[in-house]
Amino acid sequence: MPKNKEKPIILITNDDDVTSPGIKNLVEAVKDLGNVVVVAPDRPQSGMGHAITIGSPLRMNKVNLFGDIEAWATSGTPVDCVKLAVDKILFRKPDLCLSGINHGANHSINVIYSGTMSAAMEASIEGIPSIGFSLLDYSYEADFRASRIVVRNIVTEFLKPKMNKHLLLNVNIPIATPDELKGIKLCRQANAKYEEDFDERMDPHGKKYYWLTGEFVNFDKGKDTDVWALKHKYASVVPVHYDLTNYTLKKQLEKHKIFS
Amino acid sequence: MPKNKEKPIILITNDDDVTSPGIKNLVEAVKDLGNVVVVAPDRPQSGMGHAITIGSPLRMNKVNLFGDIEAWATSGTPVDCVKLAVDKILFRKPDLCLSGINHGANHSINVIYSGTMSAAMEASIEGIPSIGFSLLDYSYEADFRASRIVVRNIVTEFLKPKMNKHLLLNVNIPIATPDELKGIKLCRQANAKYEEDFDERMDPHGKKYYWLTGEFVNFDKGKDTDVWALKHKYASVVPVHYDLTNYTLKKQLEKHKIFS
Repeated sequence: MPKNKEKPIILITNDDDVTSPGIKNLVEAVKDLGNVVVVAPDRPQSGMGHAITIGSPLRMNKVNLFGDIEAWATSGTPVDCVKLAVDKILFRKPDLCLSGINHGANHSINVIYSGTMSAAMEASIEGIPSIGFSLLDYSYEADFRASRIVVRNIVTEFLKPKMNKHLLLNVNIPIATPDELKGIKLCRQANAKYEEDFDERMDPHGKKYYWLTGEFVNFDKGKDTDVWALKHKYASVVPVHYDLTNYTLKKQLEKHKIFS
Repeated sequence: MPKNKEKPIILITNDDDVTSPGIKNLVEAVKDLGNVVVVAPDRPQSGMGHAITIGSPLRMNKVNLFGDIEAWATSGTPVDCVKLAVDKILFRKPDLCLSGINHGANHSINVIYSGTMSAAMEASIEGIPSIGFSLLDYSYEADFRASRIVVRNIVTEFLKPKMNKHLLLNVNIPIATPDELKGIKLCRQANAKYEEDFDERMDPHGKKYYWLTGEFVNFDKGKDTDVWALKHKYASVVPVHYDLTNYTLKKQLEKHKIFS
């Protein structure tokens, strides 16, 4: 447990795994702003969405990867990490949860598949303000300099003594040097997605197997979308919520007589 | 591929696995309404949320479990099943996707963790009208009679030649005999969740491990919620969407000067 009681407790997690450069850059960007504790997966968990581990038990081990910052690696999903952090490591809710910096985009519909954003959403469900960060660069050697500036600006802006506990932001950062980065735009989720396909192959025993592949398609021309902002070298910030009720459709369905 | 071109193609999946009584009951309830094709996981995938399989390839095998109905078991998550069905089995979008009948509740926030609902949501993202069904009974021997009535009523109501391709419904059914079932209510997602805890144990080698447990807590007294309907022996129907943008929060954040 962090010792300095005056500083806010910042929980940091991710989905790429605890050793990834992205989480190291996130820790470095904010470590003077609070008492940072890292709880992250011990293996890659990209695309895990909001998965939780029900059928098997979880393990967690302390790791020494971030200097004097307390850090744990768990065998769970990103969502499991948040649950374990609150219940078994911090024994309280942190003041803020940060997730990332993801190696790869989580804009548009990808928020739903993303382990990075699902960890942030889990924190939000538990009443912890939370922010997920993703850089549009999958490579291990990605340049996180612009990302660190965005992280620093956003965390400084929102880390207040009385934070909005429903704050949940999906932040994506374009591939850009700090000079090329145009600014930060508040956006909505674009109607854009991967059109999936499968690469069909034959194993040495003559049986087929399939690799998921896909191509990104944008159906949304809106200039208020995350995809537009990123294309124009802005970082995008989409406020997110977890009430999945479609109130518009609910209104339309009210006329159906099968409902009591 | 189904042969009767006049009947709609109904894709059926679940998260409990292809051999579960829930999916068998779903198939039985609708098999005369269209050309049914089953594509479901070959192992339990509860709690998988919107997980997809990126790091390993997928397998699929034909199974003979539903009489003369074409059925496949895949090594993937429920979301993978929908993708494989569209791209590698049907080679087209089905007219309707049904998921379930899940053994266990998927009301309130559980829609986010649910493999059953994530499969339905994946179909919806791909422009396929879809409905997830869950019975509030985890047991293998659950009584699906009331569920089959609900399934039948809802599918008959919404299976039209020109369906709303954005139709995405989360249907939960209470534990009830057909006589006890009061009706079907159109609802919103309740603000209710599991308050998680972990059962901490020691393995034979003296190392700790953790089982996820939890207690259900309802913070929402609304009579228009799924939790209220289910408690009063109604089946609940919540229209769902996948635009996670929080427009209310977006409006509030517009005053922040960090945004361009």
